[in-house]
Amino acid sequence: MQNDQKTKLTKRLARVEGQVRGLQRMIEEDRYCIDVVTQISAVRAALLKVEQEVLKDHVAHCVEHAISSGDAEDQRRKVAELLEILNRPQR
Amino acid sequence: MQNDQKTKLTKRLARVEGQVRGLQRMIEEDRYCIDVVTQISAVRAALLKVEQEVLKDHVAHCVEHAISSGDAEDQRRKVAELLEILNRPQR
Amino acid sequence: MQNDQKTKLTKRLARVEGQVRGLQRMIEEDRYCIDVVTQISAVRAALLKVEQEVLKDHVAHCVEHAISSGDAEDQRRKVAELLEILNRPQR
Amino acid sequence: MQNDQKTKLTKRLARVEGQVRGLQRMIEEDRYCIDVVTQISAVRAALLKVEQEVLKDHVAHCVEHAISSGDAEDQRRKVAELLEILNRPQR
Repeated sequence: MQNDQKTKLTKRLARVEGQVRGLQRMIEEDRYCIDVVTQISAVRAALLKVEQEVLKDHVAHCVEHAISSGDAEDQRRKVAELLEILNRPQR
Repeated sequence: MQNDQKTKLTKRLARVEGQVRGLQRMIEEDRYCIDVVTQISAVRAALLKVEQEVLKDHVAHCVEHAISSGDAEDQRRKVAELLEILNRPQR
Repeated sequence: MQNDQKTKLTKRLARVEGQVRGLQRMIEEDRYCIDVVTQISAVRAALLKVEQEVLKDHVAHCVEHAISSGDAEDQRRKVAELLEILNRPQR
Repeated sequence: MQNDQKTKLTKRLARVEGQVRGLQRMIEEDRYCIDVVTQISAVRAALLKVEQEVLKDHVAHCVEHAISSGDAEDQRRKVAELLEILNRPQR
């Protein structure tokens, strides 16, 4: 991963970490459940965006490397990994 | 797509079609809303399974063809398509 | 459910039924897998909208009836049903 | 929220916070993208469980309070909030 991309992603994860700490405070301070639920959804959405960013980067670099190297075995492995993610129940 | 796979998938879709007809009947017969909702969820889950089956088949044949042919441009296109599906909001 | 709402929902489901028939044709005619996957996603999204519509209607009528009747047991049952849907893994 | 439930949920969120910190380390240490993606999915699933737990607790206490108090306006508000969560696109 490029250094600027690593910086960008760790910054976003640091923000998510702060949001999770905020969630603990919301529970300790007896904030209204629906507000807690809404905030948890927001954090899950932020994490999904980071996940999609990592995948995009993975394709642009690791998968691209397998393609330009012409290594068919590596290409098969990379595609099988993407398929496995696509077929996870949780997504 | 192989013929047996096509038969298998069209049969499953024919069953889904029957379930969607059943849903129309449930509404006409004033069935309890929660039962309707549960049945719609079941149909959505059945469609997701067909979708995952089509994707698996796509990787086993179309993507595999791009890999064994060694056509890097085709490989890039195929991977970009998978990534686009992975990053759809709805999944 | 009101008659106009029933008509609206059965019409939408009839359209979904047509889309599912279209999917079978797409498979028989060897249409490109990614187009099939995209179309299945569209049908799943259409079904999710019907499901949300039914839920909205359920709350506006069945749940509202439990509230205005003041029947606490019925209210508890209705809320437990909503919670069960909220906590399903698939949603 | 009961004190033992608050303790249980803040503990789970503290664990999630640790996992998010672990994700930042994984990125800094150039861990394999697919492992990062898998771990992000795990954290999202953990957050979804906390969210469902908060909702369950909300129904058991806040909504139950609205029911046993017989306050129809409060009941309507509570049900509208649950419906809004049910109909969010992200769920």
